[in-house]
Amino acid sequence: MFSVKSVVIIGSGNVATHLGTAFLKNGIDIKGVFSTTLDHAQELAEKLKTKAFASITDIPKDADAYLLAISDWALSETVRQLPSVDGIVMHTSGSIGLGIFSGTIKRAAVFYPLQTFSKNKQVDLSLVPILIESDDTEIVESLKELGNKFSEHIKEVDSHQRKQLHLAAVFACNFSNYMYYIAQDLLQEKGLDFNLIKPLIKETAKKLDTLSPRAAQTGPAIRRDMKTLNRHLERLNKHPEYQEIYHLISEQIQNLKD
Amino acid sequence: MFSVKSVVIIGSGNVATHLGTAFLKNGIDIKGVFSTTLDHAQELAEKLKTKAFASITDIPKDADAYLLAISDWALSETVRQLPSVDGIVMHTSGSIGLGIFSGTIKRAAVFYPLQTFSKNKQVDLSLVPILIESDDTEIVESLKELGNKFSEHIKEVDSHQRKQLHLAAVFACNFSNYMYYIAQDLLQEKGLDFNLIKPLIKETAKKLDTLSPRAAQTGPAIRRDMKTLNRHLERLNKHPEYQEIYHLISEQIQNLKD
Repeated sequence: MFSVKSVVIIGSGNVATHLGTAFLKNGIDIKGVFSTTLDHAQELAEKLKTKAFASITDIPKDADAYLLAISDWALSETVRQLPSVDGIVMHTSGSIGLGIFSGTIKRAAVFYPLQTFSKNKQVDLSLVPILIESDDTEIVESLKELGNKFSEHIKEVDSHQRKQLHLAAVFACNFSNYMYYIAQDLLQEKGLDFNLIKPLIKETAKKLDTLSPRAAQTGPAIRRDMKTLNRHLERLNKHPEYQEIYHLISEQIQNLKD
Repeated sequence: MFSVKSVVIIGSGNVATHLGTAFLKNGIDIKGVFSTTLDHAQELAEKLKTKAFASITDIPKDADAYLLAISDWALSETVRQLPSVDGIVMHTSGSIGLGIFSGTIKRAAVFYPLQTFSKNKQVDLSLVPILIESDDTEIVESLKELGNKFSEHIKEVDSHQRKQLHLAAVFACNFSNYMYYIAQDLLQEKGLDFNLIKPLIKETAKKLDTLSPRAAQTGPAIRRDMKTLNRHLERLNKHPEYQEIYHLISEQIQNLKD
């Protein structure tokens, strides 16, 4: 099996930073960083003890792999501009298939970390599932080995499954976070500390270790407690947008089958 | 100050069980359990090493406090049936005020644990905020002392604040859990393991230790990535109810101010 020992990082955002750091820590030679904003490339290059490149044509051509950790919308143009290389070219997107590489890239793959990354927030990558895809089984094996250096959850999934995982992640992560946002907004309005509700938020997530989401569902909607539901809707009368969410989700929870 | 040393538990559900167990562990004398279903009362009484009562008129009249851990809709009728007692009578509801006791109860209070309790799921009560209310400051002090025995987060809040906390909790807990439910449903549909997404769910909750929900918001909606949003809506075409939620929440996230 071919081992990935060197990587060039394309991009300088959260995914580039977290994966680049994990590669470096695990003895991978980071041969350089390219980003359309040179300042950002330089900042990340410094963190990763490597060089920044101002032009994509200047990046080292002899790396074992090229990590494209950039926005979905920038992928196809970046793939077009990428110099011809023999190394594995992999993107990190949940919602883009392998087709984006077709024709131009010899050894194409996906290396998708299923996690929410924010700037200046450390993440324990050992717990982060890395979802790998390639048409070439040798590449899959190489990337499994690479991912195994820092994550305990490496899994091969096809584009269809990865897209479904990404969609599910939007609900489980992005939309849950928006529920936290609303909670904070409502508490702030009455001078209440958001910290009061954090143990509840953590327990709600932790419950899934032992209960299914269906079994863990509590609250007035699942109890079909119409009095409380109506009082809550009334209490939200200055927030029609939250009222709409409250109404829609409560209705669906009430319709859950036992 | 008057110390609560003995309690009668009215109710046999999750709140009654978790609080009763915490009282017992901390040396409170549990003088008995009453529940409208005698079987349930007996089951909990056994756990709490005490007696079950088949009729509310038979409960001990000399306890220092009476914990009404029952459904909101049952509160006013139970208060009506409660024998005349000198001890503190406290309910555990987030959305009911002190008014429910008016006229009939001499020493009334609220003892509301801000947490989601499920059967057979242990909860670390030391992290659970206990929200206390009474018109009588001496009662507030007694209940603070009682709560302090097992929780590190005792707080006096008025009915208005408690109701707002309860409403915020519905978003932060009940609605987040429904987002997990949808995620699981979507994964199951494609034969994918729900465990794959659990690290993401935990990290989303954990992020709040260092970031505000606004700063922690990630995903296609906050990036205003219309291509992904539209692809996701299309992918949900067999789930019009999830589509509706996806559309509504994404729209609101897109409108978030920086």
